[in-house]
Amino acid sequence: MQASISSATSAPRSRGPKNTAQSDAEGRVELDPRYAQGLKELQLYSHAILLYWMDKARRDLIEQVPAYLGHPRGTFALRSPVRPNPISVGVVEVVRIEGGTLVVRKVDCVDGTPLVDIKPYFASTDSIPSATRA
Amino acid sequence: MQASISSATSAPRSRGPKNTAQSDAEGRVELDPRYAQGLKELQLYSHAILLYWMDKARRDLIEQVPAYLGHPRGTFALRSPVRPNPISVGVVEVVRIEGGTLVVRKVDCVDGTPLVDIKPYFASTDSIPSATRA
Repeated sequence: MQASISSATSAPRSRGPKNTAQSDAEGRVELDPRYAQGLKELQLYSHAILLYWMDKARRDLIEQVPAYLGHPRGTFALRSPVRPNPISVGVVEVVRIEGGTLVVRKVDCVDGTPLVDIKPYFASTDSIPSATRA
Repeated sequence: MQASISSATSAPRSRGPKNTAQSDAEGRVELDPRYAQGLKELQLYSHAILLYWMDKARRDLIEQVPAYLGHPRGTFALRSPVRPNPISVGVVEVVRIEGGTLVVRKVDCVDGTPLVDIKPYFASTDSIPSATRA
């Protein structure tokens, strides 16, 4: 499944900030030619959702102790790549489409991470600016 | 993979609005007991992201012609469940956790749709209120 679309490539982020919203690195999502037409009209949208398959992550932890937290929290209450189905969700800016390549900004993933889906971002349903954490 | 977490159940929406942001139906996401601890502390968050596996959807269309559009658009520029990896992403309100059940509001899926992941929603990176479509 994870190889069926392609891999995302992005600028190295060795010294980059971790928060995607603060990273202005351009990234290139290179699709297998047979999926290139799937990008048609995605440039109508300012933002897209990328779904990655975190193929390096272990999948057996139901609770985890993040260093910043110091106590166990449920895996489904964390954004850690370690989860039963290691799919990561990230919002990126759509910069342009070049054939079968989607050029994006604010990408936050390791080079070569397999991509499983690309979707247009809908502010009407995807954006909840009032969402909180206690 | 799609069976590894559980299935989401929600109120029937035979007459409900299609837009998730307008649906106040409560839905119950019932996890397999072995994953129940994964919900620990998710109630700290007001919203969560659900990833569904749209198991009824065909996976072979790279372009589609939505009825409202009348011309072909790339699958990755649409939110249709028909896509190579038929994963749907939806934001829901976290209402409460009851053991291995996550009670949510504004859920928009068909009863029994397999769930592949649950994540806390981070307004800082997931919410782009200014996102547009041309």
